[in-house]
Amino acid sequence: MAKIFKFGPHLIPETQIFYKSPYCLGLVNLKPVVTGHVLVVTKRLAARFNDLTPEEATDMILSTQKISSVIEKHYKASSLTFTIQDGPEAGQTVPHVHMHIIPRRKDDYENNDDIYEDLDENKQRQHNIPMGADNEDRKPRSAADMAEEADRLRLLF
Amino acid sequence: MAKIFKFGPHLIPETQIFYKSPYCLGLVNLKPVVTGHVLVVTKRLAARFNDLTPEEATDMILSTQKISSVIEKHYKASSLTFTIQDGPEAGQTVPHVHMHIIPRRKDDYENNDDIYEDLDENKQRQHNIPMGADNEDRKPRSAADMAEEADRLRLLF
Repeated sequence: MAKIFKFGPHLIPETQIFYKSPYCLGLVNLKPVVTGHVLVVTKRLAARFNDLTPEEATDMILSTQKISSVIEKHYKASSLTFTIQDGPEAGQTVPHVHMHIIPRRKDDYENNDDIYEDLDENKQRQHNIPMGADNEDRKPRSAADMAEEADRLRLLF
Repeated sequence: MAKIFKFGPHLIPETQIFYKSPYCLGLVNLKPVVTGHVLVVTKRLAARFNDLTPEEATDMILSTQKISSVIEKHYKASSLTFTIQDGPEAGQTVPHVHMHIIPRRKDDYENNDDIYEDLDENKQRQHNIPMGADNEDRKPRSAADMAEEADRLRLLF
């Protein structure tokens, strides 16, 4: 029987999980801002970063190192953006601590930090992103697409 | 005799350091994007996040918890933005791993994620930020200003 993980109010099937550590999971993204944009989330539902126990926080950062190292190579990137939007005033839309790992390449965004706008579901502003669509227009990926990426990444750990 | 810490190519005097752990330092900012925007940096010069040893990465995240908890209360914020710009294609301008901790409040930025633009020294775009000036126009703070903030924060640890 497939296990289901809860990411805030969202149900995440095993097929979208590519990494597991004692306290964290690595998830592929329904609406990645670029290909290879993944999340590190705590297994336990904690809303804010400072709700994490030292064990959870430590596991999250060490998982972030392992995952980001694989992601940078696998997606042939040259830099990485890490961010935690911690609380609604920081753009957090899912009230469950999650670290964004985003592989970056030269000229992936016209303005380097426009990438952050795409992390905000409420963002309306238009700009050019690699997928040629702003956040509002990005279509959620299919379950098959997400499972394929997770299967591929799972082999790298 | 005052000790000097090297943050990438920059010399940081003790007066700008408000927090010390085994592997990291908490620094006040020359050009904060909002009041209370501080940095957690590794004592050792490491350019990329994945150059950090597990001990350094762990110390950085636990220091980030301690510092951000104090910053959020002290600056009466309700959320926090955490980000590491890891490599030039992610907007990193000082090649020395550093975590940005930014206290956030409702309506501090017209568009929530515009704050990231101000993290990029090369950003030219105009928008409204709380200080009423875009990044290019922000003047570096005085040494006295930075020392005063660091003195105030140091007492909270």
